[in-house]
Amino acid sequence: MKELKELNVGMIGYKFMGKAHSNAYAKVNMFFDADATVVRKAICGREESALREAAQRFGWRETETDWKRLASRKDIDIVDINAPSCFHKEMAIFAANEGKHVLCEKPLAFTTADAREIVEAAQKSGVRHQVGFNYRFAPAVQVIRQLITSGRLGKIYHFRGHYLQDFIIDPEFPKVWRLDKSVAGSGALGDLGAHVIDLARFLVGDVKRVSGISKTFISERPLPEGMTGLSGRASQDAPRAAVDVDDATSFIGEFECGALLQIEATRFAAGHKNNLSFEINGSKGSVRFSLERICELQYFDAGSDEGLQGFATISVTEGIHPYAGNWWPAGHVYGYEHTLVHEVYEFVQSVANGGAASPDFVDGLKCTQIMEAVDLSIARGAWVDVDSL
Amino acid sequence: MKELKELNVGMIGYKFMGKAHSNAYAKVNMFFDADATVVRKAICGREESALREAAQRFGWRETETDWKRLASRKDIDIVDINAPSCFHKEMAIFAANEGKHVLCEKPLAFTTADAREIVEAAQKSGVRHQVGFNYRFAPAVQVIRQLITSGRLGKIYHFRGHYLQDFIIDPEFPKVWRLDKSVAGSGALGDLGAHVIDLARFLVGDVKRVSGISKTFISERPLPEGMTGLSGRASQDAPRAAVDVDDATSFIGEFECGALLQIEATRFAAGHKNNLSFEINGSKGSVRFSLERICELQYFDAGSDEGLQGFATISVTEGIHPYAGNWWPAGHVYGYEHTLVHEVYEFVQSVANGGAASPDFVDGLKCTQIMEAVDLSIARGAWVDVDSL
Amino acid sequence: MKELKELNVGMIGYKFMGKAHSNAYAKVNMFFDADATVVRKAICGREESALREAAQRFGWRETETDWKRLASRKDIDIVDINAPSCFHKEMAIFAANEGKHVLCEKPLAFTTADAREIVEAAQKSGVRHQVGFNYRFAPAVQVIRQLITSGRLGKIYHFRGHYLQDFIIDPEFPKVWRLDKSVAGSGALGDLGAHVIDLARFLVGDVKRVSGISKTFISERPLPEGMTGLSGRASQDAPRAAVDVDDATSFIGEFECGALLQIEATRFAAGHKNNLSFEINGSKGSVRFSLERICELQYFDAGSDEGLQGFATISVTEGIHPYAGNWWPAGHVYGYEHTLVHEVYEFVQSVANGGAASPDFVDGLKCTQIMEAVDLSIARGAWVDVDSL
Amino acid sequence: MKELKELNVGMIGYKFMGKAHSNAYAKVNMFFDADATVVRKAICGREESALREAAQRFGWRETETDWKRLASRKDIDIVDINAPSCFHKEMAIFAANEGKHVLCEKPLAFTTADAREIVEAAQKSGVRHQVGFNYRFAPAVQVIRQLITSGRLGKIYHFRGHYLQDFIIDPEFPKVWRLDKSVAGSGALGDLGAHVIDLARFLVGDVKRVSGISKTFISERPLPEGMTGLSGRASQDAPRAAVDVDDATSFIGEFECGALLQIEATRFAAGHKNNLSFEINGSKGSVRFSLERICELQYFDAGSDEGLQGFATISVTEGIHPYAGNWWPAGHVYGYEHTLVHEVYEFVQSVANGGAASPDFVDGLKCTQIMEAVDLSIARGAWVDVDSL
Repeated sequence: MKELKELNVGMIGYKFMGKAHSNAYAKVNMFFDADATVVRKAICGREESALREAAQRFGWRETETDWKRLASRKDIDIVDINAPSCFHKEMAIFAANEGKHVLCEKPLAFTTADAREIVEAAQKSGVRHQVGFNYRFAPAVQVIRQLITSGRLGKIYHFRGHYLQDFIIDPEFPKVWRLDKSVAGSGALGDLGAHVIDLARFLVGDVKRVSGISKTFISERPLPEGMTGLSGRASQDAPRAAVDVDDATSFIGEFECGALLQIEATRFAAGHKNNLSFEINGSKGSVRFSLERICELQYFDAGSDEGLQGFATISVTEGIHPYAGNWWPAGHVYGYEHTLVHEVYEFVQSVANGGAASPDFVDGLKCTQIMEAVDLSIARGAWVDVDSL
Repeated sequence: MKELKELNVGMIGYKFMGKAHSNAYAKVNMFFDADATVVRKAICGREESALREAAQRFGWRETETDWKRLASRKDIDIVDINAPSCFHKEMAIFAANEGKHVLCEKPLAFTTADAREIVEAAQKSGVRHQVGFNYRFAPAVQVIRQLITSGRLGKIYHFRGHYLQDFIIDPEFPKVWRLDKSVAGSGALGDLGAHVIDLARFLVGDVKRVSGISKTFISERPLPEGMTGLSGRASQDAPRAAVDVDDATSFIGEFECGALLQIEATRFAAGHKNNLSFEINGSKGSVRFSLERICELQYFDAGSDEGLQGFATISVTEGIHPYAGNWWPAGHVYGYEHTLVHEVYEFVQSVANGGAASPDFVDGLKCTQIMEAVDLSIARGAWVDVDSL
Repeated sequence: MKELKELNVGMIGYKFMGKAHSNAYAKVNMFFDADATVVRKAICGREESALREAAQRFGWRETETDWKRLASRKDIDIVDINAPSCFHKEMAIFAANEGKHVLCEKPLAFTTADAREIVEAAQKSGVRHQVGFNYRFAPAVQVIRQLITSGRLGKIYHFRGHYLQDFIIDPEFPKVWRLDKSVAGSGALGDLGAHVIDLARFLVGDVKRVSGISKTFISERPLPEGMTGLSGRASQDAPRAAVDVDDATSFIGEFECGALLQIEATRFAAGHKNNLSFEINGSKGSVRFSLERICELQYFDAGSDEGLQGFATISVTEGIHPYAGNWWPAGHVYGYEHTLVHEVYEFVQSVANGGAASPDFVDGLKCTQIMEAVDLSIARGAWVDVDSL
Repeated sequence: MKELKELNVGMIGYKFMGKAHSNAYAKVNMFFDADATVVRKAICGREESALREAAQRFGWRETETDWKRLASRKDIDIVDINAPSCFHKEMAIFAANEGKHVLCEKPLAFTTADAREIVEAAQKSGVRHQVGFNYRFAPAVQVIRQLITSGRLGKIYHFRGHYLQDFIIDPEFPKVWRLDKSVAGSGALGDLGAHVIDLARFLVGDVKRVSGISKTFISERPLPEGMTGLSGRASQDAPRAAVDVDDATSFIGEFECGALLQIEATRFAAGHKNNLSFEINGSKGSVRFSLERICELQYFDAGSDEGLQGFATISVTEGIHPYAGNWWPAGHVYGYEHTLVHEVYEFVQSVANGGAASPDFVDGLKCTQIMEAVDLSIARGAWVDVDSL
């Protein structure tokens, strides 16, 4: 067995994404032949006791409560940022300036201007940088990418993608941080739509122009502190606040290559828990994918025998499929968390071997740019060219 | 058995729609207790020998080659118009002026102005008038309508509908009449989108504003007369002509009630033969429907037991379901053609009993108005209020 | 247009099957270029007023209340038998002896011995004979047959078929004729299992041996005359009778070709209305079919590209598919009743042109033989060779 | 944070199951609040270098090449047996006699007699014992169990289960250990059928009698050492050996409660990678489950509103569902490996708190007993009462 270099990770954040990233770091060397060994060196957060519990549970050796201290430690190689979105910019620039490789959760930034600053800092410092568009790393998405780049789908005509959830459909669901523009930056568009936009770019290419519409169906919600413990609903006199992010955003547009796009992100689609799905139609075939059936790919091959054509449901769990062979025998399904292991694996490879990471901060920037164009098109009631931003 | 009044139908057109309407007239009294007996009296077309063959095959007693003559015959009660779209206006107005009840295929007209003229003629003459939005009569669509009007879906947030076909994806597919603006009036939007728009209106209500985009992916095609018999493809030097209708149109919009809409119609979705599908999300539940599984309805009831909620696949074939009980026992599936029998049944009832038909020419007008708004929004690159037309 | 010979049909029975057959006769010349024209000459039943209504509704010219009289009329070419099962034998033999071509609903007979008598009568008289296994005529089933006979599925290893219904799951559902052995001959096995058995034979071949088990879950039920009108349930003191047919029968077996079979027929599968489904696995591929999605075929081709293999959902609605092109354009779905039109079309062709019909009475005999073997294996608690009967 | 007792695990085996169990031990304390902390103390195998690599990759502190030494080490609390099946009996008895808690992979033993010995040893020593029927721990299976025990499905009429794979369909696939009776004990029945049998027992109850059939479709295969590297196929003159296990086994039977069962296990179902699926029909509803869509449960509730009944597809990923809440937010899907984490969690709880584990060796015995009855019924060509063994 070869001796592998160790890479020390310092992670900022320890909630949902912190858990998912910790799991990814714990598993990457167990399932993948990475060119470095990942060490869960230090985890950083503000509430000390919760942080300590997270460190123990998720297998981090040390804790830090000052993120700047963490990001400037000599023994840290990689800074992983999954703190609330409003801190991404400052943290990413600081870490890059300290010469750390940076893995930053999406959204990279709230504005195109901010995203540009981050990209510049990362490029100037010469570090590896990656943005957390983990769904690129679903094996089915990788297969789709191969189908498109190899020309098997032919010329692309349509991309239609939807990210449907329903978790805030109850008007008494509180105004949590995800519904607060100052912290989250955006609502359904930034949280959900960003993933679809990134997949659209990854698979079909850059977007030329967009026209959108958005809605905040429930304009006022109880503040979280007004929620009563047992029912999880607000009391009558709970303090309420205006919701300042979008509950749903829908937009149409055109890719540089001429294909049409249609994207919708909503938290008001009753019955959908985490349903990111998309379909791509090309001159030689079509593909469909849904995150809730992450191991499956639907593929229509217009070149197969006449009379026997149809969408095939492919179990993307075979050794031949990207990443899948590292897990279990064919048909033994994987899940959501595996995309993050793949993401971390690729970042580790990039850091260990010096190649560019992907998706990198430029991808984060381009996604932000499209979202800003959508927002602007809504504000103006008119089409917006993405390049104009 | 009661003695029923006979209603003599005179039908203009004998191709695909003529076949479907003939079948509907032949079956309506076999499966439904209508309040009149339909007589396939006379069928009208221009090519005499083909017309005669159609008359024999489809069970029409007489033929006419002059549609005005047919529409003014004393012994004709109902004029059924399924001739090419460009003739609808003239025929409908003429028949209404002759005091005939009129069943007109969609599109009612190419422009809002034309549609208004037709509505005025029909209203002035006091005849029954219906437009051929047959998909309203799918039992599943009727059930959805009941779920919405009874409040079971709650407040509606989203309608997203797609009509996907792929029959002209081959660039050598000829420029048939459906690709000729002077005859068809419109491409994917008018042929396919119209059905989705009508269902959106039928189920969710009137549309306030729209913003669209469209594409003609293949700008030039061989003319039909240049096609070689065996291969069904054009020879090298076949005469070609510009395609002047849309291959695909996509638009977003807002209903009067505040719900968002997203609609797409395309003939370039490889793998889809006749896939009209839509989903509606409300505060209390969601529904999904696909024309290629016409007997099924997907229903999510947010009021069912926690932990056991999910989209139920309902077989809309039971006696309790609208129209379904007139056919076969539960689980014995029906198909496309049955929607036309239901449509004809309702029109016969309207004529026999004097009530208003539905969908009537006003519905045809409103659909045309929305399509015109979409076209205008594309031409202007801006949102268009439907009421402004 | 060529002048076609007319074939006069005399039909015995006018309930569910009478309706379905009438519809088939009404449509066959409308949609198929048959080599004869079908005339709905006379319909026969015992209750005169109901019969007369059926004749009018279903388009029969005359009525007869004596089936022997009907079957011996000089002007009748075809006798269609869809009276209760217990009359099939006598009627079929009588009609054959009168020189009539006979289309008999399944089951042909209750016993192998009876079935043999019928076959002998038909063969002796030289008439065309067909048994009503209409599901053979689903276009998807025809495609599967082609896949198998052309070798595309390779060597067949497995046939597993289920026919699931739930209409008698309520213990208060009355003991209708289908639950009466003297009239129906058998319960789930004869009513439902027979169709699966015939498809197994049609697609995979003859069956060698079987071992079965059956259950009558509800041993006693109210007689129909005890049912109360409104609720459709029996009153407390309604007369009850023992159920003497099987509620469910399941069996395993082996084909002559060495493939394994597994078949189940039940009326106690909650949630299933009319779900006949089967899957066939061969060395080169697999197929799946479900009657409730009659227009779809699932096909797995082990020869397609590695990594892209999966069950394709084929819309069996294209012109290239058997029978489908006679109806509507691709993607415009057909239903249950269409299988009967195809069945009648083939019988008409057989009568008009003199070839053997298929499935004929020999197929009816072989199905009966397998069912008898299953029943015997249940009675004996042992395997039974089909050939031993 | 409370201080937790540490439990040292010694694991025998390091291939597929060793990997899956290692992952489970690594994750159990990360995602579950277990009452003890699991320590991956020592891993045992015969090939030293491969073992050392496995230890490093899977996070085991020490290695052992002598399983008896491992099982008798004072510092080992739990012995985990996932060595080839033929060693299970000896190892389990030895470990139990050493006073170790034992988690043994399925099959517990090759014969009922052997299984009885193991049960006796475990019961005598008073240790906790569990057998690796991990699919019980799929959250959907747990929900189904709740539906049945709470009476929501009513009286159970049918269980039909299939475990379909296709990995040895190529006749040139070598005779690996899974096809060698002396090592594996059984073919499809023991490898796959055992899981279905255990689920049938877990959900519906004990089995009364069975009648089966089995086939070895490919009777001779190349030995693994004769396989050529690149193609993965055997050379012409590769040594070959007879296959002495079943390629497919199918059986019917009856539960003690009167319900019917139908089970099939095959490695010759082209297109199926790892498709364990079953359906249960009760008087008040039905359920369906497929391992390849492990996060989904199909539930038909006969008590829901008339006209709106259908199988609901439930995403078993919500906090309310067993185990699911320990992972990710609703709709973020889990996979195969999670069932093993749940299994290990329950065993750890059993060891930490002293309650009985489940499924325990008695469940292993009863599964073996049913399989033996099936084999015997095949050998005898007759029904076999399970209790007679």
